[in-house]
Amino acid sequence: MNAPLKVLLVGANGTLGSAVRTALRERGHEVVTASRKDADVYVDITDPESIRAMYDAVGPVDAVASAAGSVPWRPLSELSTADVREGLEGKAVSQVELVRQGAPRLPAHASFTLVTGILAREPLLTGSVASLANGAVEAFVRAAAIELPGRQRVNAVSPTVFTESLDAYGDAFAGFDPVPVARAANAYVKSVEGHRTGEVFRVE
Amino acid sequence: MNAPLKVLLVGANGTLGSAVRTALRERGHEVVTASRKDADVYVDITDPESIRAMYDAVGPVDAVASAAGSVPWRPLSELSTADVREGLEGKAVSQVELVRQGAPRLPAHASFTLVTGILAREPLLTGSVASLANGAVEAFVRAAAIELPGRQRVNAVSPTVFTESLDAYGDAFAGFDPVPVARAANAYVKSVEGHRTGEVFRVE
Repeated sequence: MNAPLKVLLVGANGTLGSAVRTALRERGHEVVTASRKDADVYVDITDPESIRAMYDAVGPVDAVASAAGSVPWRPLSELSTADVREGLEGKAVSQVELVRQGAPRLPAHASFTLVTGILAREPLLTGSVASLANGAVEAFVRAAAIELPGRQRVNAVSPTVFTESLDAYGDAFAGFDPVPVARAANAYVKSVEGHRTGEVFRVE
Repeated sequence: MNAPLKVLLVGANGTLGSAVRTALRERGHEVVTASRKDADVYVDITDPESIRAMYDAVGPVDAVASAAGSVPWRPLSELSTADVREGLEGKAVSQVELVRQGAPRLPAHASFTLVTGILAREPLLTGSVASLANGAVEAFVRAAAIELPGRQRVNAVSPTVFTESLDAYGDAFAGFDPVPVARAANAYVKSVEGHRTGEVFRVE
């Protein structure tokens, strides 16, 4: 077994975040949770200043794992400019900030694991902002990987719909094969413990 | 030969825009140019209100072709939050606005052709914001395609570096095979005259 790592988990309370926390702890890692509520550290990832305060409070960690980011779901015909900006801020700028601010603070071996989703490659009605934000983050991960200092790494986990979430989405994902959220959590373990960088781990 | 179309070309004065204008005119189409200067219609695509005024001034067109969008090029370690936002506004939100505002105004057969670039799939030093914005637009194109009204279509043209621009980039694209800009312009013809939608036309 690899040496235990200290992992900062951002967005620890959702379906995915909870599963990632469980998976990392089962692997023996120390998990520090960050969220808007019920976490070790407060963070609002849509506020770069809040991300700075989070990093200040937590200090050095071996890995940052993000399971956070929300976007508006709305038909294209009802979408406003504000919706587009809100989605980019909520899932793309926010996760870029985790990397941008984390890179100079964290040790040379640190890794970042961001979250995207299948909307980056397969569209759904009302999901155009989700696609926009996910596509942004996946391309950013490939680019940031070649510029991070030391041996720092960055990957994205890009899952399809979770078996556990299927009811909440109604028929939106009709015909998609759902995956247990534990499989997505396992991809975080692969990213955190592994040695790969600049990759999108599809879980589908 | 297909019937001549009226095409609104946004960003008509750059290396790519000029080539697209030439290619569309050689195909017999009427091209209305929009840009911040030296164009038939003024537009600043970073300002949604300016895009609205452009559409009001031009009236119905058969196709919108965008060769516009700029992003900051800066090392990841020197990137600010403002740079990230500026790049997303300059190339992603701007082009989403062209589609979002154009969809309800244009006829049922209208098409949108946006511009991205090889940074969506192949990273370069100092290009992480370009990657971010290009990745966003490519995923958006796939998503918007299934929600546009009537038989409206949307595609992206995603070229590598142009032979004509190679000197300006120094060694950044070392080892990339450049393409004549006319090849990228031809991909606009394919998108505008063709029947495909939700696709990224790679030119490399």
